[in-house]
Amino acid sequence: MPVVQIELFEGRTLDQKRKLVEKVTNAIVESVNCPPDAVTIILRDMKPENYARAGKLWSDTR
Amino acid sequence: MPVVQIELFEGRTLDQKRKLVEKVTNAIVESVNCPPDAVTIILRDMKPENYARAGKLWSDTR
Amino acid sequence: MPVVQIELFEGRTLDQKRKLVEKVTNAIVESVNCPPDAVTIILRDMKPENYARAGKLWSDTR
Amino acid sequence: MPVVQIELFEGRTLDQKRKLVEKVTNAIVESVNCPPDAVTIILRDMKPENYARAGKLWSDTR
Amino acid sequence: MPVVQIELFEGRTLDQKRKLVEKVTNAIVESVNCPPDAVTIILRDMKPENYARAGKLWSDTR
Amino acid sequence: MPVVQIELFEGRTLDQKRKLVEKVTNAIVESVNCPPDAVTIILRDMKPENYARAGKLWSDTR
Repeated sequence: MPVVQIELFEGRTLDQKRKLVEKVTNAIVESVNCPPDAVTIILRDMKPENYARAGKLWSDTR
Repeated sequence: MPVVQIELFEGRTLDQKRKLVEKVTNAIVESVNCPPDAVTIILRDMKPENYARAGKLWSDTR
Repeated sequence: MPVVQIELFEGRTLDQKRKLVEKVTNAIVESVNCPPDAVTIILRDMKPENYARAGKLWSDTR
Repeated sequence: MPVVQIELFEGRTLDQKRKLVEKVTNAIVESVNCPPDAVTIILRDMKPENYARAGKLWSDTR
Repeated sequence: MPVVQIELFEGRTLDQKRKLVEKVTNAIVESVNCPPDAVTIILRDMKPENYARAGKLWSDTR
Repeated sequence: MPVVQIELFEGRTLDQKRKLVEKVTNAIVESVNCPPDAVTIILRDMKPENYARAGKLWSDTR
């Protein structure tokens, strides 16, 4: 019954998200031996100004 | 001091959210014996393309 | 397909948790019109030293 | 390798977010002795209708 | 810079977790074209009494 | 009404956590102009086997 939350930068296409959830689900199924429909995934689109490493906004490092 | 995070599909009306937080708060107060003002709730509106079960985006299953 | 995460202080009995998830699920079903089996809830037990308000650990305020 | 998630009301300026992540990173580095680049921060902008205390939406209390 | 949070039932072996993070990281890298070291994963071990579907604790459904 | 969640490696002393929540709260208060008692912080202690970067568990990289 894994529940997955993924923050990723906004701008991913629908097709990228489609591949992402399929592949991540398979990765979990193969690793912990659960059925595919036990896997729930939530994606969250993140603006570059809402992510920081080392005290700097991502939008300021580009 | 329960802190609650709820992901739900976008498109809920203000009135639905109003009922939701009132009822969920009551449910917690009655179950774990805390005062109502100890309950904090965060709602997050989710696009159908940002939720997946069994490796498929919700927006692809409709 | 609401996904709910609840942080609450450790020490709740199994029966309190049982009531909590039943009542919270009902609260959501009645508010946003989804079937009960669409509701997923994750509980997280929290030590008093892992919760703070106003800059003070809960374990220091008692 | 602290990972920080901060929900805050929408409407913060870029400069407020810039200060926020710098100061929070420093606060963590000084408290738990990790290098600055070990600190990851995710900000989430929250609508007043998506936050509740004591069973009331924030947008209803103003 | 994807950040991933995965709740899974406690009792997974170290080797299962090792495979899980390797495979999930690869799944993300292949889907959204980011370098592997951009992927951060947090696992959280969940007791069966801390997970519910349809208003019932997992520990009560077995 | 910022709500902060911080994952950090287990083993931090009570005094480190005490400093952490005080300093992080101050950092937020100074950056976004809210009162200190508006700031809620949740800490989560993380085992090194529950954190991964670049597809490798932290416990395997030491």
